[in-house]
Amino acid sequence: MPVSDPIADLLTRIRNANSANHDSLEVSASNVKIEITKILLDEGYIKSYEVVQQPVQNKIKITLKYGARNREKVITDLKRISKPGLRIYRSHDNLPTVLRGLGIAIVTTSQGVMTAKRAKKLGIGGEVIAHVW
Amino acid sequence: MPVSDPIADLLTRIRNANSANHDSLEVSASNVKIEITKILLDEGYIKSYEVVQQPVQNKIKITLKYGARNREKVITDLKRISKPGLRIYRSHDNLPTVLRGLGIAIVTTSQGVMTAKRAKKLGIGGEVIAHVW
Repeated sequence: MPVSDPIADLLTRIRNANSANHDSLEVSASNVKIEITKILLDEGYIKSYEVVQQPVQNKIKITLKYGARNREKVITDLKRISKPGLRIYRSHDNLPTVLRGLGIAIVTTSQGVMTAKRAKKLGIGGEVIAHVW
Repeated sequence: MPVSDPIADLLTRIRNANSANHDSLEVSASNVKIEITKILLDEGYIKSYEVVQQPVQNKIKITLKYGARNREKVITDLKRISKPGLRIYRSHDNLPTVLRGLGIAIVTTSQGVMTAKRAKKLGIGGEVIAHVW
């Protein structure tokens, strides 16, 4: 069955795997899901991701990150902001900050998927797809 | 020692690993190297790639693809076209084809790294970074 909101599905699978202390999870791949995953890696929220060619649809394997000592969670939560039924757009001077900069907002812009911090620096707005903290 | 042409280095490492029939190889990660690797996956030249967070510089692990029967090579060769000392740019109506469409040309455009085929479709030119066949 096709997923109605593949980005929400990605965030939910990461949230569930993280809650259950799993080492990794797999989702079907798409360009926007790979870009979001890459941002999670660049921002230090996950340990690695792998994109694997598959006959029908490629998949992404995401390896989660936990603290070295007591396996503390690195991701507290991920929240879908813009939704297919209610799109949320923000101009560059109105982009959100998450927990006063402790979290990140992920934005789709004309120049690709990036953090709100980077979009502000570039002076471009976009669709606020998720918050991660 | 920093590599003077990281893209040439990526292509050389893939070429060498492929010649030696290795299953996989690792290179230091950068955005452009990840984008080139993603195109190699999308175009069916490699089996998978993994981006792993590292203390200093992230790394990419590339898993090569060989034929199922006799481990035939999927990649014949990769060639650097534009070079730091001699940049090669092409307008959209002058983009190269490789082996009459059996290979691909990889182009950096204002809209990201993509195949020459896609750039032509979008009507944009760019820097021809490599040929793969």
